[in-house]
Amino acid sequence: MNEETVRSIVAQVIEKFQNINMSEKQVPIAVSARHVHLSKEHMQILFGKDYELTKKADLSQPGQYAANETLTIAGRKGSIERVRVLGPVRSSTQIEISQTDAVKMGYEPPVRQSGEILNSSPCVIFGPKGSLHIEEGLIIAQRHIHMNPEDANLYGVSDGDLVTISVKSERPIQFDQVLIRVSDRYKLEMHIDTDEANAAAIHTGNSGVLIKKGFLHNE
Amino acid sequence: MNEETVRSIVAQVIEKFQNINMSEKQVPIAVSARHVHLSKEHMQILFGKDYELTKKADLSQPGQYAANETLTIAGRKGSIERVRVLGPVRSSTQIEISQTDAVKMGYEPPVRQSGEILNSSPCVIFGPKGSLHIEEGLIIAQRHIHMNPEDANLYGVSDGDLVTISVKSERPIQFDQVLIRVSDRYKLEMHIDTDEANAAAIHTGNSGVLIKKGFLHNE
Repeated sequence: MNEETVRSIVAQVIEKFQNINMSEKQVPIAVSARHVHLSKEHMQILFGKDYELTKKADLSQPGQYAANETLTIAGRKGSIERVRVLGPVRSSTQIEISQTDAVKMGYEPPVRQSGEILNSSPCVIFGPKGSLHIEEGLIIAQRHIHMNPEDANLYGVSDGDLVTISVKSERPIQFDQVLIRVSDRYKLEMHIDTDEANAAAIHTGNSGVLIKKGFLHNE
Repeated sequence: MNEETVRSIVAQVIEKFQNINMSEKQVPIAVSARHVHLSKEHMQILFGKDYELTKKADLSQPGQYAANETLTIAGRKGSIERVRVLGPVRSSTQIEISQTDAVKMGYEPPVRQSGEILNSSPCVIFGPKGSLHIEEGLIIAQRHIHMNPEDANLYGVSDGDLVTISVKSERPIQFDQVLIRVSDRYKLEMHIDTDEANAAAIHTGNSGVLIKKGFLHNE
């Protein structure tokens, strides 16, 4: 086989895979367990002045990591220990839990996009060196898909779009109104929480298929 | 207004409501918490010989009731107390839990239709007068819709069909492959578990809409 033939075969194989990818619009899924993002100020109250978070493992989104540090979060009905801190520190403290956790703790947090914590639920946080009562910052994360601009172009979507993702499993589900978030810093991945993963009988590493764009109030 | 006019208006109003009902195919939703169905033999081991279950409250499906009795169910990783017994007694013991419960207890039960417990998971049950290790009977309930033959006719479905139910909420979802179960004894109602309810941010009393029929392996 000469080089030209090999190139032609390779090109055909690549085209075939791209076509499958484009017609199917597969999206890898990652399941987010409950976790805490801390402001620098709050981190130092909980872990001590001059403390720095230490990295346990990189997360799939570039620059983000699971820290070795964990905290206890509490409400009037109950508390949850060993909740993982994610780094690096952020401008505001934000705690993401499932509805199952919310019932156990006695809170009624809203479903919110990350960063939108205005008038979300309060929470008590216990660390090894101190504790905090935050007035807002406790949310249930809105399901969303991270992607870079090339993925967005390939999938025909834009930042802020809402799409439907179909998941085939023992408990098949179509997740409606999944938020598209586009950034150069993102890697293609859909994030759902443990309730959503359990309802669909899926795990990190499974995939969904983007089947249509929808709109918040009139689909 | 004479009687004829009133009758005509009433007929038009009824027709309009029926049309809405037929075009929308609304299905009331009930969320099933974890629970235990007991065989008579097992009930007597757990609560004592000659014991009879006592009714706490009727359930929506005719003849079924929540008993005052509760049990502790256990696995190698953890146990759950105060699990409600449902009556009346059945031919086989069956325990229905959520995937969240399964992870907590350390079991990997299959998603099954009620009654189909062959080769399902084992479980340990503690009662006030005795305990049991059942070899099988622990399942995660397959989402399903109870309806009587008239409902089935109106909705254009048959016993054993699989349909898609769309739920509008803060976290909208389409539940695919929802099993239709038809019997004279049934009242129209979709049953989902707590993980599914949390994933869709819905509660007992919310409704879904039957939007299409699907098939298990080739939809």
